[in-house]
Amino acid sequence: MSVWYIRGTALASAFLMTGLIAIADGNDASNTSPVYDVGLPPGYRDWQVIGVAHEAGALNDIRVILGNDIAMKAYRSATRPFPDGSIIARLAWKYVPSAENNAIFGQQQSFVAGDPTNVQIDVKDSTKYAASGGWGYGQFENGRVNPSVDLINTCFACHDRLPKSEDLVFTRYAP
Amino acid sequence: MSVWYIRGTALASAFLMTGLIAIADGNDASNTSPVYDVGLPPGYRDWQVIGVAHEAGALNDIRVILGNDIAMKAYRSATRPFPDGSIIARLAWKYVPSAENNAIFGQQQSFVAGDPTNVQIDVKDSTKYAASGGWGYGQFENGRVNPSVDLINTCFACHDRLPKSEDLVFTRYAP
Repeated sequence: MSVWYIRGTALASAFLMTGLIAIADGNDASNTSPVYDVGLPPGYRDWQVIGVAHEAGALNDIRVILGNDIAMKAYRSATRPFPDGSIIARLAWKYVPSAENNAIFGQQQSFVAGDPTNVQIDVKDSTKYAASGGWGYGQFENGRVNPSVDLINTCFACHDRLPKSEDLVFTRYAP
Repeated sequence: MSVWYIRGTALASAFLMTGLIAIADGNDASNTSPVYDVGLPPGYRDWQVIGVAHEAGALNDIRVILGNDIAMKAYRSATRPFPDGSIIARLAWKYVPSAENNAIFGQQQSFVAGDPTNVQIDVKDSTKYAASGGWGYGQFENGRVNPSVDLINTCFACHDRLPKSEDLVFTRYAP
């Protein structure tokens, strides 16, 4: 019993140390994407708005695209390519009609954010992500990384179809 | 001529003074709503996201709803009624298909923010706006207030149809 107890304590200490290191650099090493090692940036929910969109079809979501300070500055000054350190966060929710709003408006017109679907993070690092045009990708559901390599490999494949002038970024700034 | 010149200078000085006073308190007195005297809050475009929506029908817009720090704290702590000083900003853009995105996705699925339509501001002041449930309203197009009394009077009439538990606010927090 005592051996297991000591081993358990050692494991717990190692876990705590890892946690503390993760907190120190703001990144949870156990929660980063395959291929790119992209984590959920601390405080991303509080970032400023780049734009909004509705994706119909199989996704059927409504989404907001947020940027950290470096990305927002690049958007607002039309700087391309984006500087290293730019991070873009795409938050999506189920696209649902609002029965409450529609009853008040007297017609079917209002679609709002339902349950969250996933969060996608794009990080610009022209050295680390040179093989994918300078951007690394990650997808998160309920705060946990999606570990699928097949999924993450669809990101660059699709973004790479954009005109080079867009620096692999879909969203335009909504003034 | 000199009399007109002096009068012109005096008027210009008065205009400049008004401008400086307006800058000092962050509100442009010449650009506030009828009935409520609500202005465009400085920096509102940088505020945090409460939620997103698509209004179909005659409006046909896509929108993001932002909050100042007081409103965000109230949303995140589910505090109702909202405390005085809460401000909610609703930014809307034309709801337009993205030909670029759809070509890349291989199907018609992507709707994005086109040209801005208008910005609506709701300010909570339970004393100043006691007659309208504690909220004052303003609508702005291209940064200028819409002076229509008829329009502004539709705001409270519609918000007042919400359940009392919502404190006259349509948008729910999107997690």
